[in-house]
Amino acid sequence: MRAPKALFFDVFGTCVDWRTSVIRAVESFGLPARFADDWRARYQPQLETVRTGERPWTVLDVLHREALDELLAEYGAPLTEAQRAELNLAWHRLDPWPDTVEGLMRLKERFVIAPVSNGNIALIVDMAKYAGLPWDVVLGAELARAYKPQPEVYLRSAEALGIAPGEAMMVAAHNGDLEAASRLGLMTAFVPRPAEHGPGQTTDLEPDGDWDVVAADLVALAATAPFGAETC
Amino acid sequence: MRAPKALFFDVFGTCVDWRTSVIRAVESFGLPARFADDWRARYQPQLETVRTGERPWTVLDVLHREALDELLAEYGAPLTEAQRAELNLAWHRLDPWPDTVEGLMRLKERFVIAPVSNGNIALIVDMAKYAGLPWDVVLGAELARAYKPQPEVYLRSAEALGIAPGEAMMVAAHNGDLEAASRLGLMTAFVPRPAEHGPGQTTDLEPDGDWDVVAADLVALAATAPFGAETC
Repeated sequence: MRAPKALFFDVFGTCVDWRTSVIRAVESFGLPARFADDWRARYQPQLETVRTGERPWTVLDVLHREALDELLAEYGAPLTEAQRAELNLAWHRLDPWPDTVEGLMRLKERFVIAPVSNGNIALIVDMAKYAGLPWDVVLGAELARAYKPQPEVYLRSAEALGIAPGEAMMVAAHNGDLEAASRLGLMTAFVPRPAEHGPGQTTDLEPDGDWDVVAADLVALAATAPFGAETC
Repeated sequence: MRAPKALFFDVFGTCVDWRTSVIRAVESFGLPARFADDWRARYQPQLETVRTGERPWTVLDVLHREALDELLAEYGAPLTEAQRAELNLAWHRLDPWPDTVEGLMRLKERFVIAPVSNGNIALIVDMAKYAGLPWDVVLGAELARAYKPQPEVYLRSAEALGIAPGEAMMVAAHNGDLEAASRLGLMTAFVPRPAEHGPGQTTDLEPDGDWDVVAADLVALAATAPFGAETC
C-alpha cells in the first residue's frame, strides 16, 4: 500500500450528523422528528430514478425539495413557499461530528481533501462555510453528473485531480460506498458512525469488507496517516 | 449595488505572478527567460481552437504540454520525457502576489471565494496547496467545459453555487475578463497588475470600463468590502 495523494470523503453521515441537524430544523417548523427520517428515506429511491436514466440529471437540492413537498402534503402541513425554501436549506446547514473539523484540518496538512458526495456543489459549499469544513476542492456527483455508487463519480473525481483511482482513498461510514470505490481501485478507510441513524441503527456498525484502514473517527484517521504506508 | 454573495477570481496574473515563477522554472532547465513569454504567447491561440470547436474540450495541462513540446523543438532543447513532465508542472506552482493570500483570507470571512480560471482543476488545486490560496470551491473552465471569455464559464460557475449571475462579482486584472462578466450581469472588480507581463507591459494598466470597484490589490479590495453596498 502506498500513501494516497488525495482523500475523498463521503459527507452525509461520515462528516456531518444530518439527522440531528434536520430534526432540529423540522421541529422549528412544528413538524415531528420522524419527518427527518421520512425525508431521508426518499433519498435513495430518488437517486435511483436518476441513476437508471428514468429522469435526467437533477441536483440534490431539487430532489430534496420535491420530497419535502410530497411529505408536507402527506403530513397535512401547510408551509408557505418561503418556509419550504428555508426548510430545504436545512441540508446546507448540517452540524459536523465533534471530531470532523479537527480531523480534516490535520489531514489537509498532508493530503488534498475533497468531498465526493451526492450533495450538489452549492449545498456542499454552504455546509463547508456553516460547519467550517476546510475542503481543498469540491468534487463528486455534480461534477460527474452521476450519483454514487455509480463509477463515474469516483473516476471523474480522480481524473479532475490528475491522479489515478489508486492514488485516492475513499473515506466513508458506509460499507457500500467503500465497496464501490474499492472495485475501481481506490484505497478505502472506514470510519463508523453508529449514531448516524439514531439510537436504533442496525447498518454499517462494523466494517464489512477488507478496507485498508479502519479508524474510530477522523482525528484517529489523521493519527494513522500516512496509514502505515511507504510514502510516495 | 448590492453586496455579492460570491467573489469569482481570475487566477493567472490576478492572484499569481505566473511570469516570474515560470521564468524561474525554465531557467532551472537551462532555458532563457523569454521562453516563458513564448510559452504564454501560445495560450490564447490554443484556447481559441477549443472555443471555436476546432478541437474538442481539452484541459489546460494538455495545452501547456503541447506548447512546451513545440517550443522545445524550436529552441532545439532536448529535454527528456521526465523533464518535460516536471517543467509542465511549473504552471501548478506559481507564486502569489504579496497581497494575495492575506486579501483572500480576509475576503473569505465575508464571501464565498472561488477561482473562475481557465486553469484545470488539478492545476488550480496544486497551486492552492503550493501558494496557500484558501479557496472555498474550484469553479471555472473545467466545470463548464469552456474557456473564458465564453459565457458558459461565468454562468455555470454561478449556477453551481445556486446564485444568480448578478449575485457574483468577478475580480480580475484584465479588462476583457470583466467586460465578458459584466455583459452577463456579474458585478466587477478591477485589480491592476502592472508587472504581470514584466517591465514593458502596455495592457490592462488602467480600468477600461465602468467597473463596480477598482482596488490597488486584494488587501485593498478586502478593505472596501462589502464594497460600499447595502448588505443583502
